Amino acid sequence: MKAVVVGSGDPVGPELLKERCLDADIIIAADGGGLYLYEAGIVPDVLIGDFDSIPSDVLDFFRSQKKVAICSFSREKDFTDMELAVEMAVSRGADEVCILSATGTRLDHSAGNILLLYSLLQKGIRGWVEDANNRVYLTQGRMELKRLDNWKVSLIAISPEVNGVTTSGLQYPLMNDTLVLGSCRGVSNEFASDTAVISVEKGLLMVILSRG
Amino acid sequence: MKAVVVGSGDPVGPELLKERCLDADIIIAADGGGLYLYEAGIVPDVLIGDFDSIPSDVLDFFRSQKKVAICSFSREKDFTDMELAVEMAVSRGADEVCILSATGTRLDHSAGNILLLYSLLQKGIRGWVEDANNRVYLTQGRMELKRLDNWKVSLIAISPEVNGVTTSGLQYPLMNDTLVLGSCRGVSNEFASDTAVISVEKGLLMVILSRG
Repeated sequence: MKAVVVGSGDPVGPELLKERCLDADIIIAADGGGLYLYEAGIVPDVLIGDFDSIPSDVLDFFRSQKKVAICSFSREKDFTDMELAVEMAVSRGADEVCILSATGTRLDHSAGNILLLYSLLQKGIRGWVEDANNRVYLTQGRMELKRLDNWKVSLIAISPEVNGVTTSGLQYPLMNDTLVLGSCRGVSNEFASDTAVISVEKGLLMVILSRG
Repeated sequence: MKAVVVGSGDPVGPELLKERCLDADIIIAADGGGLYLYEAGIVPDVLIGDFDSIPSDVLDFFRSQKKVAICSFSREKDFTDMELAVEMAVSRGADEVCILSATGTRLDHSAGNILLLYSLLQKGIRGWVEDANNRVYLTQGRMELKRLDNWKVSLIAISPEVNGVTTSGLQYPLMNDTLVLGSCRGVSNEFASDTAVISVEKGLLMVILSRG
């Protein structure tokens, strides 16, 4: 079951929004993310948050739509709107969560949202954070990536050491290597075939595809 | 000894550049970061990198300045330009490193640059990544923050668990609390006094000040 969650970070543009929502089983807007969906002509299944960033006319419109479940929370809460939205996706049974408009000028929100992927990873749910120029994943095991022409592939240690890193399909291959936190050695690798495989024996690795 | 390192991420604006460089003992430009310094009328002490992003006329100008040490590296290297620049700051004896223009649309570079702070932390060197809207720190111990009006303070676990987190001077205080990776519980706290103190007993914590 595929979920798309849309936050109130930088807009990703209507084309990407539409493409990701096309085959989604559930679309969840986190507060101001509802505006981006509204502007793209997409009605979410759930609108969740403290509603301090969604314009009131957009909120009223979604309230008037029977399809939309409105989940309202106090501003004085221990969770961010995006966190509530991702938890909603999990509770509805998603096994794949694409998180859009989760990055932007507020690095606190960008970092917090990206690291929410760890909570999905722990539950065995495939998740990624995507914006117009990047796709961010976390892995502790094996993952496959489809080639994106002219995009770079970066492997960044989140654990102090990530051991047994092996890749195939990348221009600068790793073979049972160790990547350490605080080094950029794995940044800006490139696809060498249509599919790249990255595997990790121990530790938490961030994998980022970025438009080069 | 204070070092300022300037990368080729999003520009931080000439005012912040000038302010940070005013009392710097050494100014290091990582490749395209040299352009931002040039535009602000600042001549760096060191220009380092593979020079694939600095405009050739700016490079020529700096080559003509006796003050500037030019350190040129091949594009086919295991280190990013920013990593080389930060290592240069360390080798010159810096005990404080302010890293500017290290964030932007390329999240691979942003994440890699921010996590370079871990290599400084391990050496006991105070470092932070700063842009127009954020200051990012890593800590495993105690740190003090001066109040910035209308800026938020976020505490984000990088280790699976960060234990013994205690704060003073924040609106939502923590007292020997545990923050876990994948939770946004520590995001968007606020200053409650002119100085905030954050201390950690075990684990790696990212602390981000963001313009609210």
